[in-house]
Amino acid sequence: MDLPVDADRLRADLEANAAFGRVTYEAPEKLGRTNLTGSAANRAARDRLVERFEDAGLEVAVDAVGNLVGTWVPDSADPDAAPVASGSHLDSVPEGGIFDGPLGVYAALEAVRAMRDAGVEPARPVAVVSFTEEEGATFGSGLLGSSVATGATDADEALAFEDGAGETLGEALGRIGYRGDDEIDPASWAAFYELHIEQDTVLEEAGADVGVVTTITGITHCEATIEGEANHAGATAMGDRTDALAAASEFVLDVEAAANEVVAAESDSAVGTVGSLSVSPNATNVVPGRVEAGVDVRDVTRESMETIVGAARDSLARLERERGVQTAFERPFDVAPTPMDDRLRDAAHAAAESAGRTAIDLHSGAAHDAMRVAAVTDASLLFAPSRDGISHNPLEWTDWRDCAAATDVLAGALARVATE
Amino acid sequence: MDLPVDADRLRADLEANAAFGRVTYEAPEKLGRTNLTGSAANRAARDRLVERFEDAGLEVAVDAVGNLVGTWVPDSADPDAAPVASGSHLDSVPEGGIFDGPLGVYAALEAVRAMRDAGVEPARPVAVVSFTEEEGATFGSGLLGSSVATGATDADEALAFEDGAGETLGEALGRIGYRGDDEIDPASWAAFYELHIEQDTVLEEAGADVGVVTTITGITHCEATIEGEANHAGATAMGDRTDALAAASEFVLDVEAAANEVVAAESDSAVGTVGSLSVSPNATNVVPGRVEAGVDVRDVTRESMETIVGAARDSLARLERERGVQTAFERPFDVAPTPMDDRLRDAAHAAAESAGRTAIDLHSGAAHDAMRVAAVTDASLLFAPSRDGISHNPLEWTDWRDCAAATDVLAGALARVATE
Repeated sequence: MDLPVDADRLRADLEANAAFGRVTYEAPEKLGRTNLTGSAANRAARDRLVERFEDAGLEVAVDAVGNLVGTWVPDSADPDAAPVASGSHLDSVPEGGIFDGPLGVYAALEAVRAMRDAGVEPARPVAVVSFTEEEGATFGSGLLGSSVATGATDADEALAFEDGAGETLGEALGRIGYRGDDEIDPASWAAFYELHIEQDTVLEEAGADVGVVTTITGITHCEATIEGEANHAGATAMGDRTDALAAASEFVLDVEAAANEVVAAESDSAVGTVGSLSVSPNATNVVPGRVEAGVDVRDVTRESMETIVGAARDSLARLERERGVQTAFERPFDVAPTPMDDRLRDAAHAAAESAGRTAIDLHSGAAHDAMRVAAVTDASLLFAPSRDGISHNPLEWTDWRDCAAATDVLAGALARVATE
Repeated sequence: MDLPVDADRLRADLEANAAFGRVTYEAPEKLGRTNLTGSAANRAARDRLVERFEDAGLEVAVDAVGNLVGTWVPDSADPDAAPVASGSHLDSVPEGGIFDGPLGVYAALEAVRAMRDAGVEPARPVAVVSFTEEEGATFGSGLLGSSVATGATDADEALAFEDGAGETLGEALGRIGYRGDDEIDPASWAAFYELHIEQDTVLEEAGADVGVVTTITGITHCEATIEGEANHAGATAMGDRTDALAAASEFVLDVEAAANEVVAAESDSAVGTVGSLSVSPNATNVVPGRVEAGVDVRDVTRESMETIVGAARDSLARLERERGVQTAFERPFDVAPTPMDDRLRDAAHAAAESAGRTAIDLHSGAAHDAMRVAAVTDASLLFAPSRDGISHNPLEWTDWRDCAAATDVLAGALARVATE
C-alpha cells in the first residue's frame, strides 16, 4: 500500500500550529512555543484543529476534559465497528518545541486525508485524537486527558485541578469553550497509534526513519520538602544555620549520583532528575528556610526505578541526621513500565517495509498518552527522529522530510489495521 | 539624665505597625509581617507613622524616594542648627518579623516624646527618620532610601528600579502617595543613631541590655548564572545531560564550604550564603536549563570577604570545565566594612550607665541604613537583644521590656548629643 502523504500539507499544518504561543528568540532556528492548557494560545490551536477536522469532513467530538476527536466514517466502513484511532496532544511545556505533540495529531489527520485521497476503503471508522494537558505543565498532572478518557483519573477530580493562579481545569476549559459533553472512550477503539518525536538520539545515530517502541518506561514523580530555618544571612553565624537550600543541594546531587550508579551497574535506560526547585523566602539576604523539589524517575524495569527512589529517601534521612532539617517525601504519580502491542508493532514494521522506510525497535524513556491507552486497548507508539535528541526546548527540531517519512509509516499502519 | 520612656506607648506603636501586612500562622507566637515597598500594607504603615509624627507635633517631610522624616524643633533649639537624627525602616522581607526596622523608627519617636515630656531642652532639632526599601526585597537593591539620601545612588536611577511585575519604584511610590518633593540630606545632620534588633545571640548570651556596634561588616551581593541545556527528563540519557540545577547545587555547597573554611581559619564573623535560586523552566519533567543564584558575602575585613567571593568564582570555572555549563558572575552590590563614630559610641555607653542599663561592644553582621549615613556624617548603631538570634522570620522576637530598655539608652544618647 503506497499512500500519497502530502508533506507540504503536513508542514503547513504544523507551521500554522506553531504560531500559537510562539516564543521569539534571537536565533532564527529557535522556534519555541508556550501552549498551556486554557491559554489564549491553547484555544487558538484547538480552534484551528477543529477547523481542519471539518475541512477534512471529520465528525468532531469534545469530552468533559477537552479531549478532541475527529472521526472519519468512510462509506466503506461499518459505522458501528470499533474505530482505529491515532493522535497525540497540542499542549506544550513552557518554552517548549513545535513538534512535541502536534506532529502526532497532524500526522494522524494527514494519514486520514492520504487514505481518503488514495481511495483506501477501511472497514472501520478512523479517529484523529488530541488529548488535553499531556505535559501536566499547567494543572500539575501529566497525561491528564488520556488518564480521564481511560478511567485512570476521575473526570470530576481532574476538573477540580487548579493552576498556579487557582483557576480549575473545568473553569479554564469553560472559559476557552472546550468543556464538552461528548463521550470519548478509548476502550471502544480497536487500536491506537501515537506518532511522536523521539526526544533522544537513537534514530539519528542509527539513520532510521521511524522507531517502533517496545516498552514505555515506568515513571514516578516524587515531591521532597526540606524545612530548615529562615534567618538573616548577615547576622546568623555559619555554625548557627539550618540552611534548607544547602541541604536541598545535597539532595539534588544524591539523586543524580544514584541514577548514574544505576546506569553504570544495571540499566543504562534509567534516569533520575530533580527538575524543579522552589526556595522560600528566596531572597539573597535570607538563609533559605524551606525548599520543595520535584523529582522524576524512569526506567524500563520497576527494580531500577525503586533503587533510585530509595536513594532519594535515604538522602533525606541522612540530611535530617546531618543537617538538622525536617523533610517530607510524597509520590503523587507512579506508572509501571508499559509494553506496546505486538500486532500493531508488526503492522508498523510491515508498513515501513512497504513504503521503503527503515524502522527499528527501541524503548521510550518519555511517557506518552499511548501509555494510558494501552491499559484499555491495543496501543502502539512510533517515533520520528529528533535532531540531537533535544526537546522541551525551543531548539527541538525534526526535519520536514523526517516528519513526512514517519507519517508515511503511520498512514500505512493505520490503513492496514483499519481495513482488517 | 533619666528619661520617662513610655514602654506601653512604644509597644502600642509597634503592635499597631505589626498589623500592616500581618502574616497569620498556626502558632500564636509567630507574628509575621510582609511589608513590601509600594504595597497596601506599606502605604498603611507610612500613613500611620505620619499620623504619629503629627500627633507628636513633628514637621513631616517626604523626599523623592519616599524617605520620611518627622522633625521636632523645640523652643530651646536654634532651628537652623544641624539636627540630630535617629531612625531605621518600616519595610520587611517577605514573611519577616515585626521588630526588624520598625523598632528603630518608633523608638526614635518615643525618645523624642520622652525628651519633650521630661522637659529636655535640646540646642538642636531632633529628626525621626524612616528610610525606604532597606531590605531590597521588592526593587532588588538594599539600603535604597539611605543610599539615595546620602548620594551613593542616583535618585532618578533608583526611581527607575523595577519590581518583579515591571512597576518602577517611582510609579509604586506615586501610586501610594509617597513620592515627595522635600529634600532629606543626612550630610546636614550633626549625628545619626539607629537602634535595631541584633539578629544574633551575642547580647542574649551576655545578658546585656544594649549593644554598641564598633564596625558594620562589609557586604557583597553576587549573581551567578549557570546555563546548561533544558531537555526532556525521561528521554535524555544521564550521560547526555547538561543539568544546570545539578551544577548549581555544587555551587551552593562550594560557597557554604568556602565560608566555613574562612570561619575556621581566619575570621569567625565571616558568612557566605546562597539565599535565592531561580530555576528555569522549573518543571519536574524537564532537565533544568538555566539557574540564577543570589549570593551574599559579609565580614569585618575585606580580605576574608574576597576569599569567599574568589571561591565562588573558582567554583563556576570548575563547573564550566567539569560539567560543560556556561556561567556568568556579576557583583552588583559591594560595600566595605564601616567603623562607627567614637563620640556617638561614647555617648551611648554614658547614657546606658546613667540609665542603669548594661551595654557591650560588638560588630554588626547585617547592613543597616547607618552604614550609608556613616559615609556623610557621624553615625552610630545600637542593638536590642533578639530571642535566639532569629530574624527575617515570623519567629523573630524581642521582649517588650528589652525594647523599652534599649529605647532608654537611645533617648539618653540623643538627649546628650542634641544638647551639646
